[in-house]
Amino acid sequence: MSGKGKRGVVGFDLGGTKMMAVVYDRKWRDCGRNRRKTNAEIGMKAGLDRIAETIDKALDDAGMAPDQLDAIGIGVPGPLDPERGVVYDLPNMGWKDVPVKAALEKRFGCPVAVLNDVDAGTYGEYCFGAGQGKRCVLGVFPGTGIGGGCVYDGAVLRGQAITAMEVGHVCVLPEGALCGCGAHGCLETVASRLAIAQAVVAAAFRGEAPHLLSEVGTDLSKVRSGTLARAIAAGDEVVESIVVTAAGWLGHGIASVVNLLAPDVVVLGGGLVEAMPTLYLEAVETRLRERVMPALRDHFEVKVAELGDDAATCGAAAWAAAVAKEVAAG
Amino acid sequence: MSGKGKRGVVGFDLGGTKMMAVVYDRKWRDCGRNRRKTNAEIGMKAGLDRIAETIDKALDDAGMAPDQLDAIGIGVPGPLDPERGVVYDLPNMGWKDVPVKAALEKRFGCPVAVLNDVDAGTYGEYCFGAGQGKRCVLGVFPGTGIGGGCVYDGAVLRGQAITAMEVGHVCVLPEGALCGCGAHGCLETVASRLAIAQAVVAAAFRGEAPHLLSEVGTDLSKVRSGTLARAIAAGDEVVESIVVTAAGWLGHGIASVVNLLAPDVVVLGGGLVEAMPTLYLEAVETRLRERVMPALRDHFEVKVAELGDDAATCGAAAWAAAVAKEVAAG
Repeated sequence: MSGKGKRGVVGFDLGGTKMMAVVYDRKWRDCGRNRRKTNAEIGMKAGLDRIAETIDKALDDAGMAPDQLDAIGIGVPGPLDPERGVVYDLPNMGWKDVPVKAALEKRFGCPVAVLNDVDAGTYGEYCFGAGQGKRCVLGVFPGTGIGGGCVYDGAVLRGQAITAMEVGHVCVLPEGALCGCGAHGCLETVASRLAIAQAVVAAAFRGEAPHLLSEVGTDLSKVRSGTLARAIAAGDEVVESIVVTAAGWLGHGIASVVNLLAPDVVVLGGGLVEAMPTLYLEAVETRLRERVMPALRDHFEVKVAELGDDAATCGAAAWAAAVAKEVAAG
Repeated sequence: MSGKGKRGVVGFDLGGTKMMAVVYDRKWRDCGRNRRKTNAEIGMKAGLDRIAETIDKALDDAGMAPDQLDAIGIGVPGPLDPERGVVYDLPNMGWKDVPVKAALEKRFGCPVAVLNDVDAGTYGEYCFGAGQGKRCVLGVFPGTGIGGGCVYDGAVLRGQAITAMEVGHVCVLPEGALCGCGAHGCLETVASRLAIAQAVVAAAFRGEAPHLLSEVGTDLSKVRSGTLARAIAAGDEVVESIVVTAAGWLGHGIASVVNLLAPDVVVLGGGLVEAMPTLYLEAVETRLRERVMPALRDHFEVKVAELGDDAATCGAAAWAAAVAKEVAAG
């Protein structure tokens, strides 16, 4: 085995249904990984053990021992305290006040950085993907919700004891639909895949989307990004119209964020973008450039994310390494 | 005279109608100032000379010579390139592509920093006022428009070649009134003093605001913040209702910004706030805390700005000194 003497960094992506650990070497080559179901119902304590076991298996796969790790970075789908590494709430998993940093530092004896999964993905795109070398990268990842992240001057933009960049909760319709956050008319209520799914299953129910109806019926939970792309390709015009409308809303919402942050590049990622890159990107960008202030209109690019699912793991790993280096430097 | 041997920094506030230079010593004591009309119609070249003369007069007032200056900071009411110190556009003055940094560095032989006036005000509140010691300060200054600024980790948040934080151009009503920026339904169209003035002169015209009518008639340009406060105190209930509605909109718009930036403190300044601090602040804060995400609700304060008109001059001066120090340190 070639593992002896090597140093590694682990990037971890904790999702509501799946978790994945990837071991990177010093040149950021992927040299081992492990992926398994999250099984959130086992609870927080057993869940933290399961995370550790997944890291152990990835280390085995890489032929490395825990004492060869320089750092672990873990991206999580919920609000957290970045300093303490405590996740306040993982709403899809039912875990609260999860001491991720403390638990993993005790187990592995190396520095652990905890960050939001979308921040991790944005940092990954900044280091290795569509945002390389940019001073300010705004990442927007529409999915069930709409995640946002910003890397500004090389660091993940965050609050003092809380994560930031909740792009999905910029309000676009003051009297709009009730959002999961308790407010009305957040961007998520009109532009997320869940919002699209609501509209297309109603269209299917009305008989306006025959191809979609034949594939998934009217069950909202079965509408994935690929479902939408296939229905559009097969000729369901109403599905195309619904997707383009939602993408337009996303551009509308992002315009407000660009007016605030003046990013150099907006990176769009996630399943919707991957399934329909041309259609979706064009609809987002057209509305975005229409709405943004004239002074900013020519100051940013819009790009599709390049790293897919690996953005969160490599971003978490790179962020953990950067934080560990900064701490070591005093 | 006591000026010999002292070192100073000039803070300059360039407005559409007035300009002011203040000389600060090393302990940030105000030790001389000059203020005059801007007379923008003289044009850019003569205008730059007029700015320099105002600085000369302030230096005279402080008993200092130009070679005693460590830096000059100048806040301007328009978008600019912070690195080159070129102001793209001063819409109320008719000047374009104004080489402020180059002109003043040539004239005074010291480093000059140019920043947006609202950024200067926010930095002033961060250094000396309501935002002291905070990691992230969001400044919001409703006036004719609505200015915003953010100091994050000690630095003014900005774009690569453009200023940022256009809080007034967060869109709150997608089909709302046409904004000066060309988009519809920006926060400015419902929450600025101009929006309030439009509504109150219509109410006065309809006979619903007798006290306001007797003071300013129906001339929108005569409606100042003090006018509104006096009409409310005298019993014009419709004026109070209009102001409270506009302040609520401001809270609504700021909620989206807080969801993005997770600031530690929101500092509200400007004439409306100064004229009606209790009424206005309460209306803003109530709506803001209602709308913001639950995870962020208890993570920020809302405060009234403490420095008034001096925020921009002392902020510009302090920022220029900080930038000069950083440049000197390499």
